[in-house]
Amino acid sequence: MVDDTEKTDSKKAAKKEAKRAEKAAKKAEHKAAQVKPNSNDSVTEEGDVSLGKYGALPLIQSDPLAPKRTFTPLSVISKELSGKDLWVRARLHTSRARGKQCFIVLRQREYTVQVLVNVCDTVSKAMVKFCSNVSKESIVDVHAKVAEVPSPIAGCSQSDVELVAKELWVVSASQPQLPLQIEDASRAENEETSLNIRVNQDTRLDNRVLDLRTAANQAIFRLEGGVCRLFRDTLTRRGFVEIHTPKIIPAASEGGANVFTVSYFKGAAYLAQSPQLYKQMAIAADFDRVFTVGAVFRAEDSNTHRHLTEFVGLDLEMAFQYHYHEVVSTIGDVFTEIFKGIRDNFQKEIALVNQQFPTEPFTFLEPPLVLEFPEARKMLLEAGVEVGEEDDLSTPVEKLLGRLVKAKYYTDFYILDKYPLAVRPFYTMPDPRNPKASNSYDMFMRGEEILSGAQRIHDAPFLCERAKFHGIDTAKIAGYLDAFRYGCPPHAGGGIGLERVVMLYLGLDNIRKTSMFPRDPKRVSP
Amino acid sequence: MVDDTEKTDSKKAAKKEAKRAEKAAKKAEHKAAQVKPNSNDSVTEEGDVSLGKYGALPLIQSDPLAPKRTFTPLSVISKELSGKDLWVRARLHTSRARGKQCFIVLRQREYTVQVLVNVCDTVSKAMVKFCSNVSKESIVDVHAKVAEVPSPIAGCSQSDVELVAKELWVVSASQPQLPLQIEDASRAENEETSLNIRVNQDTRLDNRVLDLRTAANQAIFRLEGGVCRLFRDTLTRRGFVEIHTPKIIPAASEGGANVFTVSYFKGAAYLAQSPQLYKQMAIAADFDRVFTVGAVFRAEDSNTHRHLTEFVGLDLEMAFQYHYHEVVSTIGDVFTEIFKGIRDNFQKEIALVNQQFPTEPFTFLEPPLVLEFPEARKMLLEAGVEVGEEDDLSTPVEKLLGRLVKAKYYTDFYILDKYPLAVRPFYTMPDPRNPKASNSYDMFMRGEEILSGAQRIHDAPFLCERAKFHGIDTAKIAGYLDAFRYGCPPHAGGGIGLERVVMLYLGLDNIRKTSMFPRDPKRVSP
Repeated sequence: MVDDTEKTDSKKAAKKEAKRAEKAAKKAEHKAAQVKPNSNDSVTEEGDVSLGKYGALPLIQSDPLAPKRTFTPLSVISKELSGKDLWVRARLHTSRARGKQCFIVLRQREYTVQVLVNVCDTVSKAMVKFCSNVSKESIVDVHAKVAEVPSPIAGCSQSDVELVAKELWVVSASQPQLPLQIEDASRAENEETSLNIRVNQDTRLDNRVLDLRTAANQAIFRLEGGVCRLFRDTLTRRGFVEIHTPKIIPAASEGGANVFTVSYFKGAAYLAQSPQLYKQMAIAADFDRVFTVGAVFRAEDSNTHRHLTEFVGLDLEMAFQYHYHEVVSTIGDVFTEIFKGIRDNFQKEIALVNQQFPTEPFTFLEPPLVLEFPEARKMLLEAGVEVGEEDDLSTPVEKLLGRLVKAKYYTDFYILDKYPLAVRPFYTMPDPRNPKASNSYDMFMRGEEILSGAQRIHDAPFLCERAKFHGIDTAKIAGYLDAFRYGCPPHAGGGIGLERVVMLYLGLDNIRKTSMFPRDPKRVSP
Repeated sequence: MVDDTEKTDSKKAAKKEAKRAEKAAKKAEHKAAQVKPNSNDSVTEEGDVSLGKYGALPLIQSDPLAPKRTFTPLSVISKELSGKDLWVRARLHTSRARGKQCFIVLRQREYTVQVLVNVCDTVSKAMVKFCSNVSKESIVDVHAKVAEVPSPIAGCSQSDVELVAKELWVVSASQPQLPLQIEDASRAENEETSLNIRVNQDTRLDNRVLDLRTAANQAIFRLEGGVCRLFRDTLTRRGFVEIHTPKIIPAASEGGANVFTVSYFKGAAYLAQSPQLYKQMAIAADFDRVFTVGAVFRAEDSNTHRHLTEFVGLDLEMAFQYHYHEVVSTIGDVFTEIFKGIRDNFQKEIALVNQQFPTEPFTFLEPPLVLEFPEARKMLLEAGVEVGEEDDLSTPVEKLLGRLVKAKYYTDFYILDKYPLAVRPFYTMPDPRNPKASNSYDMFMRGEEILSGAQRIHDAPFLCERAKFHGIDTAKIAGYLDAFRYGCPPHAGGGIGLERVVMLYLGLDNIRKTSMFPRDPKRVSP
């Protein structure tokens, strides 16, 4: 499955291969011939008027002499095209035969259209039978005339017309037995069905190639791509430079907890739990403002709705002049741009996801709300929950605070600033006036944390002092400390979990819904 | 070095920490006090007229009460500002004391300006002495008046003025001993010096935070960020969706050669050598056209100028209608857009790199040249090199071909199409007419391969047959084969090595120059 490194391996087999290649190509040709029209013996009959109008298309192998059609996308098929002849390439979503007719629904992502294959002068019984036997999820080329229908076709996105088939060719056949049905995988969460068929998450993930074909999944991952783009574009406009940080690192940071070990030639290495050190090195190396998008690894045995062992980090780091609030306000702007960008460019995707997973629309303020930790404690206390001055917030308390903030300020996004120094990592800059506070912040969506960040200590001796204070062996973090020995501007930053942002924006209940191929302690496949 | 997972660990230490926090903050305050003006005992004297105008600034800890200045970027300092007072924050690049004067060169990326600290009514001897003792690479705030100079200042980018210092504060001090000098690391390859001082690559990489501060390195990585952006923007405009593929994978593809093993909880997993399977799954899952940018891992013990064990892959995959040349032409367009984008937006960066590493400008044709393998063989034969009909090209032969193509077509970029089937991986689609050829291609810059790609076999039974043909145990690639069992459109794609593109565009001699923190068999740090 690798383009590049295989050359060497393959080369060894070159001579052997040479002799076999011709034979293989002949086989392939033979195979293509086998699947030509009317190969379906049971329905072939003398004088089939549809002969040459249906069947399995030869394997598309980029033959320059093969016939070529121009396809019309399903999305544009409507009354305006009625009477027109066209070709479409789409999946066979469902089909049912009824006497001399076969009704097929074709699907192209979220778009669906009905095809009628009807015995007539030019369409044989054999062709109808062939069409009704094509397995669901096969890709087919259909030549048809667009016809208006007297009443809208229920369940089709293109409901005011149907396609009256003239030809139907199978481009890529699906196995007839599907491990899950797309209709079941697409069923709305709030829809009551007699059988109440649902597809459980493991079945979905085990058969992700099918599961991803649902309209909601198509929308989720298109929107996720959009979030990445909005993140990068906003920062690029603000003078940030994109960098790439290594995933293979020499030492397990923070004493080796939650880190994956890699065999590295004759030694061992580790998978980076965060690009933070490298972002900070880029700042110390005069890049001024940097961001990076990439895989982050956590060997944490957390089997929750919001933890993955591998996720996509949207990370940024920025030198500031005097106050880390310069950075907090930049990060706040990034979120505002992301939320506005999604709202303005992904309405259709949001609607598709909501059809299957109904939720309240996401609300936000511009500029974002910034709460300080003591204010949050006060709000919680008024709600009957006491949080110590130097305690962290537990996950349930974070959720409660999210609800209190939503009720008071009507926003699903806010920034919580000035966390207690005691609950933050050693490299966090202490507050200059309050010895119990720190220059650090978390950001929340619908009451769940999606970013953690801080002003980092940029002074090597002070950093060393704070590390010792935390009981950290400074010899083990020498590489980190060294980054700050040759002059470093004050800086702050943070890391955003992409999958969490998408999950929470869309109000989904599980992070596995927003990771295309999720990894957790129990799953490394497909 | 991790924002998120540490909460738990830190929490345990919360109580202990609480007691110590106050003490720590006091220490920090004390420390800040220590580095206040006139802490430099040796030069302090009664009646220092510059008292309060120089010294070490207290640690920038985001104190709301600290004084704030507006800084002028070095890049805009010129004659137009002469007579004006301004503040700058920059690195002290070099300094030399000469009697009652100290000449300092400040640096901000590629910009440099001279500062004169001159004993006068308002500047004391003590201040000049302090300034001349500030270690190189320290970050300083300077308050100064812009003054025209009678003749241009050699070696400064802002050569028509100097800054006459009124105040100078050290924001972040560098250690006085530097493991490498920025001037040495910046020296042009073709510059003859009496001592001929160069910084070797390992010293550079071991001290990357310093090395990255050179003008050439600043330019290389800004341009690299630009290449990523151009790649993504071009594809986004063409309807591609950005996806993220897992780096931790369940099975070593292709029999386990060149793959890193990861300890995964109680089992083992592997690092992905390519996102190819996942891109193809996305195509089988109806995403139609996808791209992904991310880390790719190769456990190959290759210690060459162009191999890394971890690099950034720019990968794309695209369903096509009839011919894989639809994809080849899209990839060709992507390169054209990248080359034009670099040419139009990164002239300054190219010039900065060329100052240190002189090279011929990169040439390309629009649309790109596409050669077929037999034509390439013919050109090589005419040059006296015979390549068998079913042989791959060796690296030296690729380079020779690059020179022949450059001489004949005047392009540093071209596409070589229709590789022999025998030298390509099992999943490569055979040519439909020539049993010895395949629907596959490589792309080259300055005679070195930067992309490998092909039409992939999208039919599960045929794929299975070809795998067996290559002697691959199909049970081991079941996950891959399954992706094609439920209908898949014909598709092709390829993977580009980002660092190679940047290295070859800029005519650099080593891929470690275009990887910010390179990884090779002998290096996993910093």
